[in-house]
Amino acid sequence: MRDPRSIAVIGVTGYSGFELATLLLRHPELGPPTFYVRETNGLECLSQMFPQLRARAEAPLRPLALQTVIASNAGTAFLATPHEASAEYVPALRDAGLRVIDLSGAWRLKQEQHRSVYGFEDSDKGLAEELTQKAVYGLPELNGDRIAGAILVANPGCYATSIILALAPLLKAGVVDRDRGIVSDSKSGVSGAGKEPTAKTHFVSVADNLSAYSVFSHRHLGEIVEQLSLGHQELIFTPHLLPIPRGILSTIYVHLNRAMTALEVESCLRNFYSGKRWVRIFQTPKLPQLQFSLHSNYCDLGFCLAEDGRRLVLVSCIDNLLKGAAGQAVQNMNLMYAWGEEEGLQ
Amino acid sequence: MRDPRSIAVIGVTGYSGFELATLLLRHPELGPPTFYVRETNGLECLSQMFPQLRARAEAPLRPLALQTVIASNAGTAFLATPHEASAEYVPALRDAGLRVIDLSGAWRLKQEQHRSVYGFEDSDKGLAEELTQKAVYGLPELNGDRIAGAILVANPGCYATSIILALAPLLKAGVVDRDRGIVSDSKSGVSGAGKEPTAKTHFVSVADNLSAYSVFSHRHLGEIVEQLSLGHQELIFTPHLLPIPRGILSTIYVHLNRAMTALEVESCLRNFYSGKRWVRIFQTPKLPQLQFSLHSNYCDLGFCLAEDGRRLVLVSCIDNLLKGAAGQAVQNMNLMYAWGEEEGLQ
Amino acid sequence: MRDPRSIAVIGVTGYSGFELATLLLRHPELGPPTFYVRETNGLECLSQMFPQLRARAEAPLRPLALQTVIASNAGTAFLATPHEASAEYVPALRDAGLRVIDLSGAWRLKQEQHRSVYGFEDSDKGLAEELTQKAVYGLPELNGDRIAGAILVANPGCYATSIILALAPLLKAGVVDRDRGIVSDSKSGVSGAGKEPTAKTHFVSVADNLSAYSVFSHRHLGEIVEQLSLGHQELIFTPHLLPIPRGILSTIYVHLNRAMTALEVESCLRNFYSGKRWVRIFQTPKLPQLQFSLHSNYCDLGFCLAEDGRRLVLVSCIDNLLKGAAGQAVQNMNLMYAWGEEEGLQ
Amino acid sequence: MRDPRSIAVIGVTGYSGFELATLLLRHPELGPPTFYVRETNGLECLSQMFPQLRARAEAPLRPLALQTVIASNAGTAFLATPHEASAEYVPALRDAGLRVIDLSGAWRLKQEQHRSVYGFEDSDKGLAEELTQKAVYGLPELNGDRIAGAILVANPGCYATSIILALAPLLKAGVVDRDRGIVSDSKSGVSGAGKEPTAKTHFVSVADNLSAYSVFSHRHLGEIVEQLSLGHQELIFTPHLLPIPRGILSTIYVHLNRAMTALEVESCLRNFYSGKRWVRIFQTPKLPQLQFSLHSNYCDLGFCLAEDGRRLVLVSCIDNLLKGAAGQAVQNMNLMYAWGEEEGLQ
Repeated sequence: MRDPRSIAVIGVTGYSGFELATLLLRHPELGPPTFYVRETNGLECLSQMFPQLRARAEAPLRPLALQTVIASNAGTAFLATPHEASAEYVPALRDAGLRVIDLSGAWRLKQEQHRSVYGFEDSDKGLAEELTQKAVYGLPELNGDRIAGAILVANPGCYATSIILALAPLLKAGVVDRDRGIVSDSKSGVSGAGKEPTAKTHFVSVADNLSAYSVFSHRHLGEIVEQLSLGHQELIFTPHLLPIPRGILSTIYVHLNRAMTALEVESCLRNFYSGKRWVRIFQTPKLPQLQFSLHSNYCDLGFCLAEDGRRLVLVSCIDNLLKGAAGQAVQNMNLMYAWGEEEGLQ
Repeated sequence: MRDPRSIAVIGVTGYSGFELATLLLRHPELGPPTFYVRETNGLECLSQMFPQLRARAEAPLRPLALQTVIASNAGTAFLATPHEASAEYVPALRDAGLRVIDLSGAWRLKQEQHRSVYGFEDSDKGLAEELTQKAVYGLPELNGDRIAGAILVANPGCYATSIILALAPLLKAGVVDRDRGIVSDSKSGVSGAGKEPTAKTHFVSVADNLSAYSVFSHRHLGEIVEQLSLGHQELIFTPHLLPIPRGILSTIYVHLNRAMTALEVESCLRNFYSGKRWVRIFQTPKLPQLQFSLHSNYCDLGFCLAEDGRRLVLVSCIDNLLKGAAGQAVQNMNLMYAWGEEEGLQ
Repeated sequence: MRDPRSIAVIGVTGYSGFELATLLLRHPELGPPTFYVRETNGLECLSQMFPQLRARAEAPLRPLALQTVIASNAGTAFLATPHEASAEYVPALRDAGLRVIDLSGAWRLKQEQHRSVYGFEDSDKGLAEELTQKAVYGLPELNGDRIAGAILVANPGCYATSIILALAPLLKAGVVDRDRGIVSDSKSGVSGAGKEPTAKTHFVSVADNLSAYSVFSHRHLGEIVEQLSLGHQELIFTPHLLPIPRGILSTIYVHLNRAMTALEVESCLRNFYSGKRWVRIFQTPKLPQLQFSLHSNYCDLGFCLAEDGRRLVLVSCIDNLLKGAAGQAVQNMNLMYAWGEEEGLQ
Repeated sequence: MRDPRSIAVIGVTGYSGFELATLLLRHPELGPPTFYVRETNGLECLSQMFPQLRARAEAPLRPLALQTVIASNAGTAFLATPHEASAEYVPALRDAGLRVIDLSGAWRLKQEQHRSVYGFEDSDKGLAEELTQKAVYGLPELNGDRIAGAILVANPGCYATSIILALAPLLKAGVVDRDRGIVSDSKSGVSGAGKEPTAKTHFVSVADNLSAYSVFSHRHLGEIVEQLSLGHQELIFTPHLLPIPRGILSTIYVHLNRAMTALEVESCLRNFYSGKRWVRIFQTPKLPQLQFSLHSNYCDLGFCLAEDGRRLVLVSCIDNLLKGAAGQAVQNMNLMYAWGEEEGLQ
């Protein structure tokens, strides 16, 4: 019998994986999670790999063999693996009856024109297609009901989380002049670029620097426009690499299709997120700063409205490794099992 | 007899002032500049105030008395003072026949509706008005001819420099769809906020952080729209405070009024800046990074054009203390006296 | 009747105060603490002052009047105030029967020759003397028994914590050649310098920099030598200001009075801290890094021994705001009331 | 005919190589240097590789073939290559009559017991031995006369430069109590660790961190003790990795063998460096900060003396890429050709 409280975590060596391990190890509803990695490199437990781990347990590491996961009683699997690995593992895990939360991009996109960025092979398409249509995009504030019943949750991208949460209320209210175009100028800490040492992530390349990259071509663009039902040309999204380890701040520029008051804008945001524990609305002219949401699962939203009531600047901040990855994954699990939305996240 | 090579520098204790001193002390055309500060605090020379100074001379400090400056043979005065002080000192210096380069905002704005941000008193207005109309906005790449003959140069703001240089070629070419609005999302290092210790500039407030500020209300907005002949509502300018000491990167979003090719955009920029030593155009898709222009007088410009040929993202980088302040001031001096545009700036 | 679970926190606007508030608000044994500040500046609750606060409550702020504290049923008071304020408030709080944990330096030093650094007035000396002798130096790993019964705990300095914990086992074992002198080269993040904006804490002064300060004269020197029973000349302590927000790393140089093996040194440390939850010993040649203990209450200790077995380099890391201040204060409270040593600290 | 003003630079892709290229390109005595790299990767000039280059020339890149260098009229070769490459190239270049300045460790050590760290093969030893004995350790303030006539200059290590310059005056004066041991606690920016992307140089590993490494085993230890005629056990040298791009600060602990006054210590330093342009002595209690020497060729020295007059803390700061590498290499060239010691370094 599969036990939802018995957790398999696949891929725990990256930044998101480590944060996920930390959260799961102290989650009050769970038994000790089992951690699988492709190569244990002789290490026997997680605390050997991460001296900074502060957990209640040593957390044994196991070499990954899918059959071992399937043969266990694990009811829930988290994947913090590259999208290619997720695309490979998820079908087998689903066949074996585990509920899966995948942190990669493999299952986020329903529309075929977007999916090419994650490069599914033709041969996978039949199988992938079925699971893709069953997968639920794991943004709890938008898709809470569907996440509750999901068997496969595609945990959103970090940039996507920060942008979708800022824009969804206004788009749903129909007050955005989409013809004039939306701009999201987003800035991320370096952990968003992954743990692989590259010329781009070398300290000397990043420190005392700022750079834009993947303009018009970042792969989170697809999930953003798909979730917000926007046309590709309606959103310009420019990511930047910040000289800090973590955190995302998106500055988002919107034209409204009628003059609004600041109070109306604030109400629009507050009503949309009424009862949502992990979104905080700032009262204009106060704006969230990136620092305020670090090491938390909050998405902080604030805005400034021009005197003409039509030009709106939104600021959205998250911790890319928590609300943008591991924290949101735990929030999704809490929804799937009807546990408190705060469990393991405070 | 006033000697143009005899330089008086008023206000040298701030970040721009220090950079200016460093440049002037090694400028090959100049004699030893004289440095005036409001309070010497017992210090006798600049190297006592700034141990990092690496100059050919000790550079004596003198307590500021306007009469001393006027009584000297100085032909050129640089002011790196707050705009209130510049507003007070410049008329007397001009009366005495010095040519003045002012780094503050006091003399940048010709249009009265913009000028309120620098708060001239009513009583000053007659006098101020005359000098204001004579002052030349010291952006050498745009106003070179007028700077050559200027008696008062208003050195541009740092943000303004980065934005105007990026937009001027396209606006002049008439290819910008101004109705759809221009966005400049600009990010500056902390030296731009001045040397005064405040809660905002405390290391712990800035490190591991990013924040937007003065949305729709930054005082450089006036000079940008005035120089570019834009309406206030045609530009949204959002400054951000970066966790680095210096440098500005502006990411600028423009809709074109017809589909262009990348080559056309690049030609537009290259032609406009043909023969201009201190602007570098990057070939798309390469973009300048903030780091590339640090400690130099360069403005680096690059761009990405969407597939539709109509949505354009420009990236503009400068060192806020050099091309954004002291370096540009020296460049202006070189133009005023027909010295080589590179003198003292390499 | 005073209730130990009813907590008064005096002074919550500084960095340590904020961390303390965060810890107390989620401590499972406590009721909602009451927060007193000298000036509320119109703010009504802690989350208005600190947008980054992520607590279960809004946490009302009250203007400080000592009589209000005394008139409440608070059984425990934390003071995160300057030492002058602590020196003034503690006697009255003690008279009224509260147990006090003071984070300042006011009550740390028993020996008169050290105490001058905190500048007690002559007139205070009678009163101060009595409380000083009753005060327990709140380093739980060394003074656990006495803290359990203490009415006034003097919470140690941050540098002192990192140094004493590294040296105590070896000094107690009598293996240190004290005649050859001990060196502690310590490096601290900027939050250790306090929240007051000064030229020294300005971002531009700290970033891309490192500086030594208070050589031979830092005021933590007194408590270190007093707690370790060292002569002043037996320890050289050099603090440095690091370009990071928080954390302390002390590199400590010791000559041993006989050749030892690495295993003997490790045993000496492990035995001394046997059963101590918040000290972690690293196995040579692995050394703790500053990052490993950030945002935790751990003190991480590691060492390298020269081939001659007599020259020893110790590395000690803490989070200056947690094990070096607020975390240790909570650990002390847990000891005073015989609660689990981990309560509220995970 | 070889022309000393015709310069071949081998290996220009690393951090030191880039700084060296920048300095040589604007050195007033030189013709355009020729830059050789192992792999041009299709790049044709240095400014393509380093967009931040601000030089008077495009600086063509050539694929390295030793015969090409030898066939040119180059009179001087700089090597900014790994020590294995330097060990291989230098004999051929010397045979061909070029004067060589090598920035690697290959030729720094005369004493065989030290040299093992650079791993010469047995078979090389005959050849290597002869050149090794001819090589001059290129610390201009100590070995100026011998550098003037040198055919092969071994440019010192960065840490070594900062430590030797601080200790040499006191050791030469015979005032150091060497029996009590000398400690150098040194901290370096990340460029000192090289440009290769590794887990250790990843931004997230370095930011908000500090770590000690290579305790008792750093390979600069050999050249320090050799140059200072110290026994290995007389110096403990602990390097640390700082979260900044560049700069070294060494805090050095010395016991004096007699009580001295601060004035005597200062005189000892000043006399030793009398007439030396690139060493600056700070007047106690002022101490150099790492920032003061960045982007310059200065070594800044300061000290604090204990009240007992016998315990001395020295602080030594350099830019690791300039005085610690490329700047010193140019200074050595200036000495070799009797050019002004400042040429190309201001």
